[in-house]
Order: sequence, then structure tokens, then C-alpha cells
Amino acid sequence: MKETALPLDSKTVARLADDLGFDIKHASIREMNKLVDSLERAFDMKFIRMEFGIPGLETHPVGIEAEIQALRRRKVSHRYAPFDGVPILKKEAAEFVRLFMNVEVPPSSCVPTVGAMQGCFAAIALAGRLHEERKTILFLDPGFPVNALQVRFLGFERASIDLFDHRGDALLEAIEERVRRGDVSAVMWSSPNNPTWVCLTEEELAGIGRICDQHELIAIEDLAYFGMDQRRDYYEPGVPPFQPTVLSATRRGICLISASKIFSYAGQRIALAVISPELVQAKAPALEEYYGTDRVGHAFIHGILYPMTACVPESPQYGLQALLRAANSGDRSVFSAASVYAERAKAVKSAFLKSGFRLVYDKDLDEPLSDGFYFTISYPGFDEGSDLVERLLLYGISAITLDSTGSCRREGLRACVSMIDESRFDALEQRLAAFHRDHPCRRSTS
Amino acid sequence: MKETALPLDSKTVARLADDLGFDIKHASIREMNKLVDSLERAFDMKFIRMEFGIPGLETHPVGIEAEIQALRRRKVSHRYAPFDGVPILKKEAAEFVRLFMNVEVPPSSCVPTVGAMQGCFAAIALAGRLHEERKTILFLDPGFPVNALQVRFLGFERASIDLFDHRGDALLEAIEERVRRGDVSAVMWSSPNNPTWVCLTEEELAGIGRICDQHELIAIEDLAYFGMDQRRDYYEPGVPPFQPTVLSATRRGICLISASKIFSYAGQRIALAVISPELVQAKAPALEEYYGTDRVGHAFIHGILYPMTACVPESPQYGLQALLRAANSGDRSVFSAASVYAERAKAVKSAFLKSGFRLVYDKDLDEPLSDGFYFTISYPGFDEGSDLVERLLLYGISAITLDSTGSCRREGLRACVSMIDESRFDALEQRLAAFHRDHPCRRSTS
Repeated sequence: MKETALPLDSKTVARLADDLGFDIKHASIREMNKLVDSLERAFDMKFIRMEFGIPGLETHPVGIEAEIQALRRRKVSHRYAPFDGVPILKKEAAEFVRLFMNVEVPPSSCVPTVGAMQGCFAAIALAGRLHEERKTILFLDPGFPVNALQVRFLGFERASIDLFDHRGDALLEAIEERVRRGDVSAVMWSSPNNPTWVCLTEEELAGIGRICDQHELIAIEDLAYFGMDQRRDYYEPGVPPFQPTVLSATRRGICLISASKIFSYAGQRIALAVISPELVQAKAPALEEYYGTDRVGHAFIHGILYPMTACVPESPQYGLQALLRAANSGDRSVFSAASVYAERAKAVKSAFLKSGFRLVYDKDLDEPLSDGFYFTISYPGFDEGSDLVERLLLYGISAITLDSTGSCRREGLRACVSMIDESRFDALEQRLAAFHRDHPCRRSTS
Repeated sequence: MKETALPLDSKTVARLADDLGFDIKHASIREMNKLVDSLERAFDMKFIRMEFGIPGLETHPVGIEAEIQALRRRKVSHRYAPFDGVPILKKEAAEFVRLFMNVEVPPSSCVPTVGAMQGCFAAIALAGRLHEERKTILFLDPGFPVNALQVRFLGFERASIDLFDHRGDALLEAIEERVRRGDVSAVMWSSPNNPTWVCLTEEELAGIGRICDQHELIAIEDLAYFGMDQRRDYYEPGVPPFQPTVLSATRRGICLISASKIFSYAGQRIALAVISPELVQAKAPALEEYYGTDRVGHAFIHGILYPMTACVPESPQYGLQALLRAANSGDRSVFSAASVYAERAKAVKSAFLKSGFRLVYDKDLDEPLSDGFYFTISYPGFDEGSDLVERLLLYGISAITLDSTGSCRREGLRACVSMIDESRFDALEQRLAAFHRDHPCRRSTS
């Protein structure tokens, strides 16, 4: 396919967005997705698609074959799975948590969910009803935009502290200050962070854990990108360094481990919620009204997950069990997706930086960020990410605004590398060069 | 295994229940399940298990093989499925609705869900927020107990009209009277009905549809037992009679079609929500606050299903598509589970009746009930179902009380035939005979 002349005609782009009923400047991920589909057809060109975080690599066959065995030999398809998960998966998961996170939990603390989406929903649904008067979930932003939708769905409130200007002690002080108002029931974050790839340090996690214990909050840790901080090697079982986790530092943690990214296994919707054993056993009378029990662990499984989907489809539970077993036995090939994304990120990020872009979130305290699934960019002269996103579309590159992820940095965009394989690097460089040529780096209104 | 002497020792039974922390008289399905597991171990005997409605037959291979193809050849496991479902499934589903229900809907009206459990949850979540001041879901009881949990989860209210004393015009009058109070947002029922096997007539459905249109309610129809009214043959595509449905009679229907029972496919959690096309297009400003849009169809998919589980696991979508395609092409073997259950019900029901039991819900207006997955029983002299359930346990037979399903008939029990194959009929008859011998049928306090 020959390269189309750039920039694309802005009137045509505006008309196509209009036809779909979208405002380009405020499009959601899904709307941007549809718009880019339509632009690709209209201009007969392939975009560099960075708007959407979908795992572009195939699932390791060990997971797929285990699913097939479960369907053919174990004949799991006609019966309901146990509501708290298939026992051998729970056992393997506890072993995984021990070997890769250095945390001891019983199998009963490891509960499969229909993707981490359901796990997050359930954790929020639990937290917001743990105390009658505490309906606010405090997010360390930016974050996964759908968590905000979940809070809204459940009729709770959302509060926010931005990681851009709060790290280390400043982060802990800000959390503690916000929590003191008395309306917060949980603190929630992802690390490595979607969209910035910021990784919270062990000291930060220890502080958050302490605050949660002290104020009876739930610590909701989204490990969607487990071990994907590529500055360290977290994929050797039983050997340090271990994936940092708040579970090491609190009696009130719920940690969501998605199989979508680490195992490139998004389509079958399988994840784990790992719950602090003390939290499983805890009682909270306010839960009774909504979930029919005051026991936290019982409420999570029977009062929340059960009425949502009855149980988790059974064959993916065996698929995940096989992947965890391979990981636990030291087979690193099941983690290969993670390093592929890191390599891509390195190349793609450097192409952006070469063409005058800057990283918005650029450091973990004193340390440069890891390469991974996402990074954040801005361009001198663009004060509004929505203007930048619109302009980049004319150069065949799509992304979403940081604003839409809850970030305080209005100038920034989130870029995802999952869909850009090596064959697109040249096209990316050419397009970025054309953009840079047309937008010399100096302070100006866009 | 030799038959154990009956009745079992009541003190031992009471102690085992106590050990588990259950009150036999008020045990939930799941608690009863655990108790019977423990009784079977303690007395070294197999119970006649009628407490639990799990599909006991294997899924038709056409579904399983389609899942395996999807995993191996289509490589669906690493990518997210479309949020509104796989297109070929949606198309096949619309065809199924046309051929077996005689209703025309576009594929966009057919949305897969993670089991009908998620479909019910989503339908209730939609209905209860359609109008600001209408938070009550009106149930035609008895019904599936988990629907009540879902209402409670969502913080809505539950109202009830019992099918025992309301059928035909009396049912419609009762609905209309209750609706006039102004707080009802939806009417919900299952037909064939869990637990009574009552089937609403086309006239009743037409009346409910009319009331829903008139009062802007949602009609939520749970067709978990699609076509399993064995008095008629609903399994011939394109040929009357058709499965009666409220979709024929309203512009505001959501019909849940579970694959768990008709296709014995419960373990992989796959079902369809079929939504009236007019409802998909309708607008409701009150939805905006919770689901970020006022468009009903958009809210259902992007505001409700998406934040719950992101999408439905993809391989089961292909499995269901293959089963529907087979059904649509006239292959009746995919429906074989339904007739097996009916045969069992006939034999099991007659064994109960021979031993002095009575049916609690015994007629559809003038017509005797069909045989199917469930039926309802009582025994002369037992005014409380909880006493009867406790006593039957001593004879190696388990069930749940009708009371726990929202029925007004306190004396009744729900019996499910799914786990009783032919090899157990003799044991059942012997145990019922022993019970009958020890409890001669006359009016007495139990």
C-alpha cells in the first residue's frame, strides 16, 4: 500500500466524525476506534493505531490446549463451575502469588472472575457498601476510564489524586488528607499504570497499605500488567525481585490479576481476585442489606459475583490454571508477550521523542519509566490534548486524550503500542516526520 | 450400594446441619446442597437430589466442536470480542427468534451475555434506572430466587404477585392495579416457570405486553426453559406452534434465552438477551446519570454489560452459534435434553402422587401442567414446607421450600428432576413408600 499524502483533508475527517455523531475532541476509546475504522476505509490507508489497548499477540498454546481438554475430556460445558472457582485453579493461583509476589495466601483467597473487569466491579461494589456513610472510591489517577464508569453504575462517588504531582511522601500525605474527610471506602490504582506506565514503589505501596489498615479502607490494586515493569525481572519463580504488591503491606487488599495482557488471553475473559485472608474473614454489618451477609468473603462471592454471572466459564479456568502451572514451574515462555510489548514501546517512544514529542509522565521518582504497553506524550505548542489528537489523525496516527483517563494533564495523550508491530515502524517515523515538519517546535497556539 | 434403613437418625442429621452452621428449615439452595453432600458422606448413601437445578446431560458435540474450532483456528482467545457480540452469533440468533418465536428482530436486538444470570442482572439494572422515581421490579412469583438478590444488589425494590391465585384476567388486573401506584419500572417472570412449571398463555402475555407499553414498563421475560412446555412441539423451525413470548405483544420487551437448559450448556455461561427493536432505539434521560447515555440500547451494552465483564468470552459465542444454526436448519437432536427432562418429570411426579403427595401449582388455567425441569409438591398434614423438607431428608430425598422462591404457598416444595436418571427411580419409589408408610395421609400436625 503506498503512503497517502499527508496531512489528510481535515474537512473530510470532520465530516466522517460528524456522520458517526462523535465529537473528535471528546471521543471515548470506543468512539475513536469506530472513527478510525471509518477513516481507514475512506482514505484507503492503514492508521498507526494507538488508541486501543488490545493484546495483539497469540495466547500461549498451553492455555488453549488445557481449555480444549477441559471441554473434551473433563466435559465441563454442561455443569456449573463452583461459584468460588475450580479448586485446582485456586491452588495454582495461591502458588503463583507465593512464587511471584512473595505473599502467602490460602487458595480460598484466590477467586477467578470473568476478566479483571468483573473483579474491579466486584471490588468496588464491595468497598462502597462496607460502611454506610462511605461511598467514595479514591483513585490514584490517571487510570482505566472504565473504573470510573463502574463507580457511576453503582451510584458511588469518585475522588482523585494525580500521580503527576504526587509521588512518594507527597502521595501518601495527599491520600491521608483526603481520607480524613471520612467518606472514602477504598483506594484504587493500577501499577504498572494504565495509561502512564508509572510503577508505584514498594515504599509507596507500604504507605498505602498502612493507611488502608488504619482507616479501614480497602486497597484495590489492579495488576493488569503484572510483572511488565521491564526494568526488573519479575518472571523467575521464587527468586527476588518480586512483583511489588500492596498485599505485602495490608490486611485489607484486593489485588486483581488479569490474564489478558501477561498471557495475551483477553478473549476468554479470565482473571483472579486475590483477597487478603484477613479481609475474607472480616465482618461488616452494612453489607447485609445489599449482599445478604455481613461476612466480607462470603459477600464477595455469593452476594456480588454470583448474582452477576453465576460463575466463571469453566474451560478458561483450566486454561489459566495451565498457564499459571507453567509459570510456577519456571517456563518463562508463557510471559513472552510482556517483553515483546516492551521492545515495541522502546522503538515507538524513541520515534516520538525524535520528532519533538515529550513524555508527560516521565519518571518514577528519580528513575526513568519502564517501557511497556502504554506511554504518554505531548507536543510543544499544543495545550489541549484534544487538539493534538485531532491533528495527529490527519497524519494517520490515533490515540486518546489523557484527560479522558482522569489525568490532570490536559495537554497529554495516551499511546498504546500493542497493535504496532515492527512492520509499521517505518510508516510511523515518516508520519511523525511529516507532522514535525508541519509543526515546528515552538510555543504557539495550535 | 444397599439401601440404608429409613428414616435416618434425625439427631445425626440435625448435628450435621449444625456443624455447617445451617438452619435446615431456612437453608438456601446452596446450603442445602452442602448439607446433602455432608449427609451422603455421613450415612454412606446416595440421596435423591432434587434441590438443585443443574443440567445433568452432556452438551451436544456441535457446540463443543465449534468452541474448539474458535480457539484453534479462529484464534479468538487473545483479542476482545465485540462488546455487543460476535456478528454471526447475532445473525443466527435473530434467525432463531424468527423461526422458533415467530418474531422479527434485527441482529442488533440480539445481545449475548455471560449466562442469563448476567442478562437478568442487566435487564433489571436498566429497568430500575429508566425513570427516576420508579425503582420497583414487579415479579410474577414464585421465581428464580437470585433475581431477588439482584434487585437487592442494585438497591431497588421488589413487589410480587403470586401465580397461585392470579392467572388469566385476574393476573392482568392485579398487575395493572399494582402498576397504578407509579413506582414500578418492570414486570419480570419466567415461563415455563421455575419452580412451578406454570406456563403463561398467549393471552396473558398479550395482556402483560399491553400493560407494559401503556405504562412505559419493561417486560422482562426469562425463557430459561425455552420450548420445554412438552404439551406442544415448539422445536420445529418456522412451523407453528411457536414458543409464546411477550416480544410478540410489546415494544418494550427484554427476553432472556439461556443456553444452560435447552442446550445443557450451563458451564460455559452463554445466553442471549433479545430486546424489542423499539426499546433499543428508545431514549430515557434518567439513564444518563448511571450509564452515560440516554439511549436505551447503548446503555444496555456500553453502560451496563461492558463495565460488568467487558465482553462475553468468545469461544462460547461460537459454540452457541453452532447450536442455533443446527436448530435453525431443523436438527432436533440439539434439543434432546428437553425431552429427557420431561420423561423424567413424568415418572418422578407420578411416584410422588402415588405416595400421597399433591401438586401445589397444578394447572395452567384449565389445562394440566406440562412435565419439565421442576414441579411443586406438598403432603397432607404438613402446613410448613420447611417441616416437610426436613422430614424428607430423613428419607434420603432433598428439595427446597417454595417459600424460598417467593411463593405464597408455605406448605410447598420445589422438586427438580435434572439429577435423577432412570437408575434412581426404584430407590425413589421405595423411599417415598417408606415416607408414606410412616406418614399416613390424614390431617394432623406434623
